[in-house]
Amino acid sequence: MTRIVCRQLAPRVGELGPNSELSVQAVREAVARRADVVVLPELVTSGYVFESKEEAASMAITPDHELFSFWADAAGGKAVVVGGFCEEGADGLLYNSAALVDPSGLVAVYRKVHLWDREKLWFEPGSDPPPVIDTHVGRIGLLICYDVEFPEMTRMLGLAGAELVTVPTNWPLGPRPQGEHPPEVVVAMAAARINRMFIACCDRTGTERGQQWTAGTSLIDEAGWVIATADDDGWAIADVDLAATRSKTLTELADLHGDRRPELYGRIAAPSQPV
Amino acid sequence: MTRIVCRQLAPRVGELGPNSELSVQAVREAVARRADVVVLPELVTSGYVFESKEEAASMAITPDHELFSFWADAAGGKAVVVGGFCEEGADGLLYNSAALVDPSGLVAVYRKVHLWDREKLWFEPGSDPPPVIDTHVGRIGLLICYDVEFPEMTRMLGLAGAELVTVPTNWPLGPRPQGEHPPEVVVAMAAARINRMFIACCDRTGTERGQQWTAGTSLIDEAGWVIATADDDGWAIADVDLAATRSKTLTELADLHGDRRPELYGRIAAPSQPV
Repeated sequence: MTRIVCRQLAPRVGELGPNSELSVQAVREAVARRADVVVLPELVTSGYVFESKEEAASMAITPDHELFSFWADAAGGKAVVVGGFCEEGADGLLYNSAALVDPSGLVAVYRKVHLWDREKLWFEPGSDPPPVIDTHVGRIGLLICYDVEFPEMTRMLGLAGAELVTVPTNWPLGPRPQGEHPPEVVVAMAAARINRMFIACCDRTGTERGQQWTAGTSLIDEAGWVIATADDDGWAIADVDLAATRSKTLTELADLHGDRRPELYGRIAAPSQPV
Repeated sequence: MTRIVCRQLAPRVGELGPNSELSVQAVREAVARRADVVVLPELVTSGYVFESKEEAASMAITPDHELFSFWADAAGGKAVVVGGFCEEGADGLLYNSAALVDPSGLVAVYRKVHLWDREKLWFEPGSDPPPVIDTHVGRIGLLICYDVEFPEMTRMLGLAGAELVTVPTNWPLGPRPQGEHPPEVVVAMAAARINRMFIACCDRTGTERGQQWTAGTSLIDEAGWVIATADDDGWAIADVDLAATRSKTLTELADLHGDRRPELYGRIAAPSQPV
């Protein structure tokens, strides 16, 4: 079994040092709870509600920043860590990025492809599709927040064999009917079910410059059901069998991926006439 | 407002005449309840759990069958009717099809593209993408059951401007955690939200040759929430504003369809290497 641990945190905008320390401490505590995979929120180092591009730039770090060695050290020779950060690219532009770190150090950086709302004022959208990374604990795909609401993205990762998709998020709180999951979780549940893969969404909590957050951290199993949400201290923990994702066959005659009809997809471009 | 009415029925396998009469009566009663759109289950004329291709063939009808004029007559000069039937094609093959009928008669036939499980033993899969039809009540897309679990299909319909997707279904009952919607409904909720369109899934009820059905009929609004399920008599009714689907803009800087990055989709074909 693989233990997935999400830690829902409340970073404070503008406080790069304390936020970084908070994230390292979260990794350390997650490993103490025997995590194999630790997932942290989006932009955990910087906070989210920037007032200007300059403010975002003042909190940006590069992939060679010491933070990622601290995460690797905290991983205790064992865990894979995924978390979001405000990235300064070699091109001088800012990206909303996620890092995957293992005990050897930084393994991959993914730049969010679908920027939500005012993120477009500070960040450049990523120009590469999301990675799928063979780690020592399993095959992990990376997305960030709004990305998960594009089924093209989750499908790509599913077809590439992702066993677990990790999704650092900052979900602004919106209204929802009583008893329902946050809407973004509903979308992630659907993606998990139809691709038969685990999805770990690690949200943030707290209120930032008036913005309330959903605190909707959810671990979703390969059948599409929520198996853990954050407890009062922000921990969501589940032990899962990642190997359960390797076959997409549901019955002798049904296969979630084999039943696709890609030759028919995308052919409707405008309203069609009646046959 | 547009009144959508699903009527969850219990057709009996092998009884084409009584099932057809049941479906016509359902349309008549739906129109008495002021339906603008009536949705009936998948294979409502034939039942579902066939024992052989020959048995399915014995219940197949062609698109010029009088049933569709009966539906049109029952539509009372007003409603659009969508329902499933076992179709005999001009090619002599059997299809799991849905008809869209308006007061003038048959407008469109769609053949299910994604056959579920043992349907593959009797039916030929459809070779055309699903239609989007401009009716006098709005722009309606057609899918059948398992089709809705392929986000490629719902995305195609959304991009083609479907305001309402009608989904005749026969959902076999499976386990689910207490308090959760049927898993197929979760997938439809996600598709409705991310494409900002209404989805009307009309399921069947009863037990057929030992197969229990979910009876999961659900009307889903353009934000992805279930707004009606079947009452004890099998009626699910909702009044909706189909025009609410015409803009995909959520904020000044966010647009559900405009934010797509199609140039990046589908580029991962195999597990990628770490960057």
